[in-house]
Amino acid sequence: MESTKQFGNKKRIWTTRLDAKNRRIDSVKGLVNGMVIPTDQIVDVMEKLIRPGDRVVLEGNNQKQASFLSEALAQTNPKNLYDLHMIMSSISRPEHLDLFERGIAKKVDFAYAGPQSLRMSQMLEDKQLMMGEIHTYLELYGRLFIDLIPSVALVAADKADRFGNLYTGPNTEETPTLIEATAFSDGIVIAQVNELTDDLPRVDIPGSWIDYIVVADKPYELEPLFTRDPRHITDIQILQAMMVIRGIYEKHEVQSLNHGIGYNTAAIELLLPTYGESLGLKGKICKHWALNPHPTLIPAIESGWVESVHCFGGEVGMEKYVAARRDVFFTGRDGSMRSNRTLSQMAGQYAVDLFIGSTLQIDEEGNSSTVTRGRLSGYGGAPNMGHNPGGRRHSTPAWLNMITSEDPLARGKKLVVQVVETFQAGNKPVFVESLDAIDVKKDSGLATAPVMIYGDDVTHVVTEEGIAYLYKADSMEKRREAIAAIAGVTSVGLKHNSNKTDKLRREGLIAFPEDLQIRRTDAKRSLLAAKNIEEIVEWSDGLYEPPAKFRSW
Amino acid sequence: MESTKQFGNKKRIWTTRLDAKNRRIDSVKGLVNGMVIPTDQIVDVMEKLIRPGDRVVLEGNNQKQASFLSEALAQTNPKNLYDLHMIMSSISRPEHLDLFERGIAKKVDFAYAGPQSLRMSQMLEDKQLMMGEIHTYLELYGRLFIDLIPSVALVAADKADRFGNLYTGPNTEETPTLIEATAFSDGIVIAQVNELTDDLPRVDIPGSWIDYIVVADKPYELEPLFTRDPRHITDIQILQAMMVIRGIYEKHEVQSLNHGIGYNTAAIELLLPTYGESLGLKGKICKHWALNPHPTLIPAIESGWVESVHCFGGEVGMEKYVAARRDVFFTGRDGSMRSNRTLSQMAGQYAVDLFIGSTLQIDEEGNSSTVTRGRLSGYGGAPNMGHNPGGRRHSTPAWLNMITSEDPLARGKKLVVQVVETFQAGNKPVFVESLDAIDVKKDSGLATAPVMIYGDDVTHVVTEEGIAYLYKADSMEKRREAIAAIAGVTSVGLKHNSNKTDKLRREGLIAFPEDLQIRRTDAKRSLLAAKNIEEIVEWSDGLYEPPAKFRSW
Repeated sequence: MESTKQFGNKKRIWTTRLDAKNRRIDSVKGLVNGMVIPTDQIVDVMEKLIRPGDRVVLEGNNQKQASFLSEALAQTNPKNLYDLHMIMSSISRPEHLDLFERGIAKKVDFAYAGPQSLRMSQMLEDKQLMMGEIHTYLELYGRLFIDLIPSVALVAADKADRFGNLYTGPNTEETPTLIEATAFSDGIVIAQVNELTDDLPRVDIPGSWIDYIVVADKPYELEPLFTRDPRHITDIQILQAMMVIRGIYEKHEVQSLNHGIGYNTAAIELLLPTYGESLGLKGKICKHWALNPHPTLIPAIESGWVESVHCFGGEVGMEKYVAARRDVFFTGRDGSMRSNRTLSQMAGQYAVDLFIGSTLQIDEEGNSSTVTRGRLSGYGGAPNMGHNPGGRRHSTPAWLNMITSEDPLARGKKLVVQVVETFQAGNKPVFVESLDAIDVKKDSGLATAPVMIYGDDVTHVVTEEGIAYLYKADSMEKRREAIAAIAGVTSVGLKHNSNKTDKLRREGLIAFPEDLQIRRTDAKRSLLAAKNIEEIVEWSDGLYEPPAKFRSW
Repeated sequence: MESTKQFGNKKRIWTTRLDAKNRRIDSVKGLVNGMVIPTDQIVDVMEKLIRPGDRVVLEGNNQKQASFLSEALAQTNPKNLYDLHMIMSSISRPEHLDLFERGIAKKVDFAYAGPQSLRMSQMLEDKQLMMGEIHTYLELYGRLFIDLIPSVALVAADKADRFGNLYTGPNTEETPTLIEATAFSDGIVIAQVNELTDDLPRVDIPGSWIDYIVVADKPYELEPLFTRDPRHITDIQILQAMMVIRGIYEKHEVQSLNHGIGYNTAAIELLLPTYGESLGLKGKICKHWALNPHPTLIPAIESGWVESVHCFGGEVGMEKYVAARRDVFFTGRDGSMRSNRTLSQMAGQYAVDLFIGSTLQIDEEGNSSTVTRGRLSGYGGAPNMGHNPGGRRHSTPAWLNMITSEDPLARGKKLVVQVVETFQAGNKPVFVESLDAIDVKKDSGLATAPVMIYGDDVTHVVTEEGIAYLYKADSMEKRREAIAAIAGVTSVGLKHNSNKTDKLRREGLIAFPEDLQIRRTDAKRSLLAAKNIEEIVEWSDGLYEPPAKFRSW
């Protein structure tokens, strides 16, 4: 066979990754006890197990952080360890950026950089950091199996046994996905654990996927990011929540959904058992959720609204409550929750009727972004859940309800809702002629503008003025008109010709509260099923245990 | 707290699913040995563990089948077990439909029904079966966590130990996802295994997720669906493959991709080491793949084109080859491959530059379908990989290359390529004025027409005439013109005004072979790196072991 001849002489080696792994493992034999890295040896061991130029995936999404391992990595000697290519869901902790400042790491691919976004922009400007790409979670996970296959995974779990089996408890999150990509490509997996034990409550990740475990000096960092104190919900947010329930959830029969995090959506959750109940909607809407265990969902769960909740991750303080409501939440035999960020994002993308979230800026065509000048905050999960999945083929009443055409090939659409007030705090307009993202693109040398949700995916925009039903707009002109009509006294709103208002209302392109039989004066905090954290605890029969910072009694 | 008062008296039970599970488990105590169901007791045990009306997810994608369990389920007594709601990736085996004929099952949600599509359409017409929805794999998996949470999972693995730990070998496929949805929602998981052993090569799924194992009377069914004998590749397919390599892969710098299965794409794979090599493209294109282990990819792997392949599932006969090429494939410590349909579909959706596949019908606007009258074949993975993922935010050269607008918010696009001959075998035109799918929608009472890939997602169509660069069409009119120009003498093609041809070529909306410096007379089978299965075996150093039906020597 002619074509093979040219390769006949040089025998290619097909185990270079495994050989490299074995050499690294040999190099730490004297420092470890089998699979266990002694806590005080972690820095030394890392300098041997990780090599310059490695792709290192570091667990650190916005909740659970492999904080012991990231701190240790930042303590390695940049003479030994440099030019790492970091892959991280979230850049959240100071040492994540110290890695770059110290020269240990060089390049980063990530999904979210909330708490470190200011410093990161600065470091990028100062060329202390080489930007890879910004992703939504699922595409970052996808690349771990395609063109960002990791050399090393640094992850966090609650407990391990001496065979390396891991128990991740309610916070399984992204750990299995990061490990699967690494373990099955001859990379090295190091898991920090809070405890080493012979008696795991259950196995979340099999020991045969793990190379090393190390008991952390303190438990991994875990932030209660999905807790909103109802005390801070305003009457305007309650008005918007009433409009959403009436003008979107009821109108389109929304049965499955994801709520972004914020007071806007917390208000909706807290109105289901009161306002929603008064409309007779229980059992008709909001039955299935892809959602972290929001404490503000407790009253709706207790009053029988919620059939199921699948979670991306856990939430501090919700452990006992979730375990005691196992008909609703996904739980293991041991009683604790099972979360899975990959699967929940997949479900949130493909299997729910609606995504609703908030944003910082919306332009005249409905494009939105949370990126503002000087802050490269990234995306998280919103682009994944906040778009119309083009691969979807199954129908639900809400999805079909979005069809406005007579085309025989017409299909439904996911509902993507943006709920905002026309002005942010500090009197900054939310509706703008041009997104800051366009400037950020130029300043940061990004290939495309960092848009969170594109206008052609948005089906509804809700403000304190009313709802714009963008899915009904059959032209860009109509879409602009509908947005301007609810954009208040922002510069975008002031372009609206008020003579057109009644026509837009008649055509159903916009609705004001009165069109939905909602009296603005009814939108009061007294409608909230729980007005503060203490009342949520009551609803939960004392099972919800809020972190100290949310306790005021 | 007023709002809770109404619930004060009736104490809701929150463990109904777990209680039901425990009752079922108690009911079979006398029939099982711990976790092990005796092989000859399976029918009796199933009648007790499964209850009428249950949602049963049955593993049976198009490769691995839980065939022992599906056969046993079909043997249960419909007086005891009826009205099941089946959830299945693929309806592939006769007993899958016997279940409905016998009244054991009533409703089905599925993704693919290739081998049983004719009978299924007939049963639907005869009202012997209630249609749920047709899905692409990922959305079906997503619904397992939202509104199709299973009561029971029936799955297949290679081996189990007595703790229920499962080894799935190269064919992990969808097993972990089906089990995760069931095990963590207090459903019952029954795994058939080929062998019970104390010594598993590795653990693919932890025993604490499994309720019962049963040793099957024979190994699970496994079909070599991704093997194409190069003997059947035609000169026309070689011409098309040359056009794809030159006019798409090289032009747009396609580095990561998924190939659908078919002779068209097999031809491309077999031209990389010959034609592709002659163009100097090695190392520049086709480096990262989301793909089953196609035997026709072996020459490209052996000649150093392929850096990585992540697989949805395995392929019969490729086990030893894959194990010996572990730098390229994802493999476990034991040496065998790790596949994962969920993660590979996710990667194939979000993390690759290009999808290329074939179809049976394309309409004038580029919509395509494999559904023809009387056959409800479903979708499989094509809609997921063959669309532009709206949540994608990272860029690659190929993705950016699709930008044709000056809009500051413009973003790239996934390349979605359809490669077809203008006529199918039997002289049926591929290009049609109206898809059969529209009639099937009416006949079957589907909510939307079963379109496989929508025209607005398609970036390129390739025929024996040339390539239509649809991503460049800035209007529906242009898109139609470009499609008609390469649609040959089909009725769609005959509408083409040949006066426009040169303008379309100049504008780059279409390209003929000569525009790509390809001589039609060069497109010969002699260009194939392997002309038959035997030559593929040679390329593999004898590691590829083709199933008997592919052996002719």
